[in-house]
Amino acid sequence: MSRTSPRTTPARLRELAVSERAELDRLLDEVLIAHVGLSAGRGGPGHDGPGQEDTGREDTGRGNVVVIPTALARDGDSILIHGSTGSGWMRLAADGRPACVTVTALEGIIVARSAFESSFRYRSAVLFGAFSPVPDEAKEHALHIITERILPGRPGELRAPRPRELAATLVLRMPIGEWSLKVSAGWPDDPADDAAGDAWAGVIPLSRPRPGPPEPAPDLRPGIPVPRSVRDAARR
Amino acid sequence: MSRTSPRTTPARLRELAVSERAELDRLLDEVLIAHVGLSAGRGGPGHDGPGQEDTGREDTGRGNVVVIPTALARDGDSILIHGSTGSGWMRLAADGRPACVTVTALEGIIVARSAFESSFRYRSAVLFGAFSPVPDEAKEHALHIITERILPGRPGELRAPRPRELAATLVLRMPIGEWSLKVSAGWPDDPADDAAGDAWAGVIPLSRPRPGPPEPAPDLRPGIPVPRSVRDAARR
Repeated sequence: MSRTSPRTTPARLRELAVSERAELDRLLDEVLIAHVGLSAGRGGPGHDGPGQEDTGREDTGRGNVVVIPTALARDGDSILIHGSTGSGWMRLAADGRPACVTVTALEGIIVARSAFESSFRYRSAVLFGAFSPVPDEAKEHALHIITERILPGRPGELRAPRPRELAATLVLRMPIGEWSLKVSAGWPDDPADDAAGDAWAGVIPLSRPRPGPPEPAPDLRPGIPVPRSVRDAARR
Repeated sequence: MSRTSPRTTPARLRELAVSERAELDRLLDEVLIAHVGLSAGRGGPGHDGPGQEDTGREDTGRGNVVVIPTALARDGDSILIHGSTGSGWMRLAADGRPACVTVTALEGIIVARSAFESSFRYRSAVLFGAFSPVPDEAKEHALHIITERILPGRPGELRAPRPRELAATLVLRMPIGEWSLKVSAGWPDDPADDAAGDAWAGVIPLSRPRPGPPEPAPDLRPGIPVPRSVRDAARR
């Protein structure tokens, strides 16, 4: 089911609520990270980043919501995230509490003839649901999907995960159930009196993050060629 | 105060918790959008995008956390966001409930010799606090700061906001109080046995979103030149 809640009625023409699941999937499959929001109660989790091996930091602050960036991979009708078993926020997410997963692609600055009408071109999806841990026997496959998503072809170039590594990694899955997608792809929408004036109007497109030339690690042994997955990424 | 939650020894050298306020400000001043998390109770807000004029959509869903992307501007020791007075999530934020504001700059893919060690280069800040409405008499100045932040020099090219526009816009301020900043800027950190193997390791840098050539609006009157603010943006 898609867009089950009435929180998704469109408000403006140029900010279109898109109900096509294919468009949602296209966005989920393009972005590298999502921002995951969780209610954290009175003693919230610390701030981990999007890396795989973040170690949790406990937080004694009063904030009862936490938003964490993390790598995202869609697997059919669900999304996958992963992190260290030691990560505080991952452990919170794993207990099945309500979660909100937001992904955003910022695509341009809409330069209107007034500050009021100026805005962004973007696509943004908000998914509501709850995560549950991927069971041990399915973990390796789920991690394969995540690695493949971030760098297509890379899993086939790597040794298999070790049992110790799998044991140290928490993989969480959330069904794609209640979601909304907003797409702002248009032009400034100035009132007639502004449009008749002398102010310029248009759009400054923003490129999506582009891979640059790969940089070898300082400890890379001589003679090891840049692998195909990395060469392909630089071409995208 | 910064980072009020005690951090133990950094788990990994390459994921550094940075406590310098100047580094936080540098990130806040670079990104165009933040992801704002709010507890939404049983009837949460709808999903608005980062545009200025989003109109709220009410929600009767069960999700009790919502994460929304929105334009961000730092103003000294606080951050500013804005939206329509009709925006459901803006109205929630305005009531002073705990908020979490997360900004992320994704800067590269760390390609390690195993999936386990692979991760991202990034900078990510998490700010905890509460928003309060900017009072009417300070609203125009705050909106100037936001517009200037998104497109430097643009406010000076535009007519002044109209009273109707100011009345329709909610501007919220959150003091920069409790925050953490994580920076991952290093290289793969493979164990010795992997580093002695044949797998490549390095980093694929990711560019930040780059402005492309400005595109005039379809209804732009002939003879209006591209303004300086837009030309300057395309050079950045």
